[in-house]
Amino acid sequence: MRTIDPNGKYCFVFSRYEEPVAKVELGEEITLLTEDAYSSLIQSENDNLAEIRRKRKGPNPQTGPLYIEGAEAGDTLKVHIIDIEPGRDWAVSNIHSFFGGLTPNKFTRMINVPFNDRIYIYRFDKEGMMRHDDFLRFPWKPFMGTIATAPPMEAISTATPFEHGGNMDCPDVKPGNIIYLPVAVDGAYFFTGDCHAAQGEGELCGTALEITAKVKLKFEVIKGKQITWPRIESPDEYMVVGSARPMEDAARIAYAELIEWMTEFGWDKMDAYQALTHAGKLYCANMVDPNYSMVAKVSKSLAERRL
Amino acid sequence: MRTIDPNGKYCFVFSRYEEPVAKVELGEEITLLTEDAYSSLIQSENDNLAEIRRKRKGPNPQTGPLYIEGAEAGDTLKVHIIDIEPGRDWAVSNIHSFFGGLTPNKFTRMINVPFNDRIYIYRFDKEGMMRHDDFLRFPWKPFMGTIATAPPMEAISTATPFEHGGNMDCPDVKPGNIIYLPVAVDGAYFFTGDCHAAQGEGELCGTALEITAKVKLKFEVIKGKQITWPRIESPDEYMVVGSARPMEDAARIAYAELIEWMTEFGWDKMDAYQALTHAGKLYCANMVDPNYSMVAKVSKSLAERRL
Amino acid sequence: MRTIDPNGKYCFVFSRYEEPVAKVELGEEITLLTEDAYSSLIQSENDNLAEIRRKRKGPNPQTGPLYIEGAEAGDTLKVHIIDIEPGRDWAVSNIHSFFGGLTPNKFTRMINVPFNDRIYIYRFDKEGMMRHDDFLRFPWKPFMGTIATAPPMEAISTATPFEHGGNMDCPDVKPGNIIYLPVAVDGAYFFTGDCHAAQGEGELCGTALEITAKVKLKFEVIKGKQITWPRIESPDEYMVVGSARPMEDAARIAYAELIEWMTEFGWDKMDAYQALTHAGKLYCANMVDPNYSMVAKVSKSLAERRL
Amino acid sequence: MRTIDPNGKYCFVFSRYEEPVAKVELGEEITLLTEDAYSSLIQSENDNLAEIRRKRKGPNPQTGPLYIEGAEAGDTLKVHIIDIEPGRDWAVSNIHSFFGGLTPNKFTRMINVPFNDRIYIYRFDKEGMMRHDDFLRFPWKPFMGTIATAPPMEAISTATPFEHGGNMDCPDVKPGNIIYLPVAVDGAYFFTGDCHAAQGEGELCGTALEITAKVKLKFEVIKGKQITWPRIESPDEYMVVGSARPMEDAARIAYAELIEWMTEFGWDKMDAYQALTHAGKLYCANMVDPNYSMVAKVSKSLAERRL
Repeated sequence: MRTIDPNGKYCFVFSRYEEPVAKVELGEEITLLTEDAYSSLIQSENDNLAEIRRKRKGPNPQTGPLYIEGAEAGDTLKVHIIDIEPGRDWAVSNIHSFFGGLTPNKFTRMINVPFNDRIYIYRFDKEGMMRHDDFLRFPWKPFMGTIATAPPMEAISTATPFEHGGNMDCPDVKPGNIIYLPVAVDGAYFFTGDCHAAQGEGELCGTALEITAKVKLKFEVIKGKQITWPRIESPDEYMVVGSARPMEDAARIAYAELIEWMTEFGWDKMDAYQALTHAGKLYCANMVDPNYSMVAKVSKSLAERRL
Repeated sequence: MRTIDPNGKYCFVFSRYEEPVAKVELGEEITLLTEDAYSSLIQSENDNLAEIRRKRKGPNPQTGPLYIEGAEAGDTLKVHIIDIEPGRDWAVSNIHSFFGGLTPNKFTRMINVPFNDRIYIYRFDKEGMMRHDDFLRFPWKPFMGTIATAPPMEAISTATPFEHGGNMDCPDVKPGNIIYLPVAVDGAYFFTGDCHAAQGEGELCGTALEITAKVKLKFEVIKGKQITWPRIESPDEYMVVGSARPMEDAARIAYAELIEWMTEFGWDKMDAYQALTHAGKLYCANMVDPNYSMVAKVSKSLAERRL
Repeated sequence: MRTIDPNGKYCFVFSRYEEPVAKVELGEEITLLTEDAYSSLIQSENDNLAEIRRKRKGPNPQTGPLYIEGAEAGDTLKVHIIDIEPGRDWAVSNIHSFFGGLTPNKFTRMINVPFNDRIYIYRFDKEGMMRHDDFLRFPWKPFMGTIATAPPMEAISTATPFEHGGNMDCPDVKPGNIIYLPVAVDGAYFFTGDCHAAQGEGELCGTALEITAKVKLKFEVIKGKQITWPRIESPDEYMVVGSARPMEDAARIAYAELIEWMTEFGWDKMDAYQALTHAGKLYCANMVDPNYSMVAKVSKSLAERRL
Repeated sequence: MRTIDPNGKYCFVFSRYEEPVAKVELGEEITLLTEDAYSSLIQSENDNLAEIRRKRKGPNPQTGPLYIEGAEAGDTLKVHIIDIEPGRDWAVSNIHSFFGGLTPNKFTRMINVPFNDRIYIYRFDKEGMMRHDDFLRFPWKPFMGTIATAPPMEAISTATPFEHGGNMDCPDVKPGNIIYLPVAVDGAYFFTGDCHAAQGEGELCGTALEITAKVKLKFEVIKGKQITWPRIESPDEYMVVGSARPMEDAARIAYAELIEWMTEFGWDKMDAYQALTHAGKLYCANMVDPNYSMVAKVSKSLAERRL
């Protein structure tokens, strides 16, 4: 199996203006090496977080773009996540005065007084848990924080989730699941990175258990099918991720697009609206990024009843 | 066991200004009869929904207030939900042009064109599912859409969730769970109603599977303990419900209060913030009411590690 | 002219459950004495703000309710603001760590570190300006921060603006203007208070130049006319105040209701929508209260072109 | 004076990845020809709006980028708007079912029923007013809907306002005023377009009086001064434009940055916060774009009191 190693050359925008780092065949299994969200600049709990945030080139360095052979504008890219292995034996998180779900930040601007930033290093313990101390100890549940195709015209920050995917920080972007992304440019220009060893819903403080990783993937294409927002298929469920602000707009997008998906299974729009009222799920993937991400879900057994 | 039957006298505000319908002892098991969200005015799919909405006295008629003996302002009320039985063999839902998560409404005002309102009647089938047709068919997962104590000074519409509980439409307000509510007035003035046979996360179209019900409850009081927002304890988890607009403010409240709760278990605030980042859950209870409700959760096994 | 002095008995909810303090005839000119937003508990810049906020009965003590003879549920109350005189020669403002437009607060909850609260006392100088020092010095532009009728069923905190008016903190509620409020209960139950010597748009830090005052008013009633949200008429303009969260919902309400008003002048709804696109005004009255208030305006000369 | 005519080659992203169309000296007066927001594809009230929206390359075609000689990353660009002349004798507006302040749209997604789209053509009448009919008739108050420099890494849609300026739809971007923009790349990469013959606050229906125009400008640079958000100087006032969602975040940014600006005039941050509470202005520029824009203002006479 081919391994794609960016060798230090990462992207900080999801963009058609970047040069592809590799061409990938449909159906080919590949392994991508990904950098952590802080470009591995944090190495110790004593590092200066503010300085690192200032000097890094950007958040969430991306491996990519991959040029997917056979993917053309107007298609849908189907990404099979086969496996995620840790790239090292530790993860890093931190708490920052001006970034996170419960602090003022660039968008929700306030006249606030900073508190002491704090870095947390976690290491695998012998039971395979990521451990900071006896209390901060979490199971290995890896996923990719960012996954995207290139938008049609924009170059979007790797901090941001939107229609193309991006920094959704959605724990369902995990091994065993399939991610569907819109293809806006020929070759799709696929990006991924920002792997997390684990993350709660909302990514509350803004920084999960950040790791380098080896991501094993396989691509397919659905020719001529256009989707507007990212979709996820797990063994049991169909999901749509909506990313917007305020959070209710992200929720509206997620459910409205899930209704659209259900109509592809033969549902009348109003009946799908009714069905999701009684049996849909709706959780928050991130409450910290430039757009918030909400994930709406329906079980396959319900969605497929009309087939 | 005592059964409290309002005999047609329901409340349409959560309010200290209402006269208690009964006094209840701590520890006493009681059964409350509750009316459905439409005061049982909808009886058929051919009823005129617009007219019914106009002529009803208000949404979500409440059984109560109950005067809880021994509950004083400044305490916390602990409500054990023992059981919910259906009050009849059918439930009602509907889709309305100007109310719901994907329609313009009183708050998100638009110049929109109405579509045809639609009423859906569901009946228990022989497998105990609520069935409209072969496709719209859902398992019985009952809970109380509204549960509240009286606010300190305000009289709040039974459409609205807030600090006192109220119309949270939270599926975790269900048998087997314990709900903690702030006591703002002596006697607590407890209200409940608006039972749902089932509901997805978000209550997407704004109307769940509305039923009349028999709700079996028991009350305890934690003396001198003040909480600010409703808390829920399930066998495995601790939860807080935040209700506000925009939805991110509801999420902030839910997680900030869950951090507060964790400090009661010995957690440092920043470490709790960190722990919830990696292992918290955050789902949407309702995206349709005057305040949206978000539910933040942590597993008991994590929360209690510091004990 | 009659002067209504509450003699220390103020209301802290806008509510039909309060006892009227006086009956007022239509057309009668009356003077109301109003308390300041802090119940005059702040007297010096050295006072302990946190303690005062804790011990006060509530924000914005209201003079009222007045029972307006001849006003019945379903009418519109027309309030002529004739004059506002200061009740004393000083005003108070303050900056607080957990309340205001640029601080975390009860709704936008954060893990933030408090800064030093600060009280500012302003006194009239010889040019009639409210002066704290050579730099913080502002002209006398008085208005009533709160003005309301009783809601139909709810008792709403005097901190909150909504359909009934309330704590809109709208600088156009000033002498020379007419305020239209919905009448939901017989007698209207009119409240006012929270006068400001001056205030910018948004009431940024959450506390304006708070004064006691003598408010001279006169009431009329428009029989059988129902309005949904507060309207304001100045010599040159028609305005609607929408109060909601997020702020865009307040804006939508204000403009949607202004379109409704324009249809009363003969405008087609779509043409009114078009006209306001090119010539409407939209400013923020408050960005600090439980609901934000936005004010949409149109010039009378444009609105009345269809007459 | 040099006239820059794009000759049909317009940009649809604000981007450093575009090739500059001209180099401009500091202090040089130039005239730019700008296209209208619909690329002049709408020519009649009978045109098919939906089809035109589908087939246009993008919204708000931009003239640019101009490479400003002497502007380097880290400077501030100072744009003097000298004059705006109409490029033709008519303007176009329209009302659309899925775009605008009072309709569902791409972000605030709903299950709504479309109404009939409508195109409005306005022509200059003999009094120099833009006239559709006797009622829809508005004075010529031209400004540029879009004005921007290139963002540091992103390529941002010409529909969107943000830190770099962009589609703010702010009526104060008008002749006689100075616009300050951050310079993120050498040469600044200046863009403008989307001129409006007039616009109300909020740009309610989403489409103002769209015109082609001749824009006369002059550039200066403030070396080594970094600003974060666009600033505007009129003869009497200083303003900052914040663009975000929800709208309160745009308001917070605008006022927080205006406080920053006041500290450059010698104000203590808390005193500036206090001053804007009593004398700031805050209006809505647009309530329809991917970010909403709010404009916070302070009079020069107040801001400069500390000098």
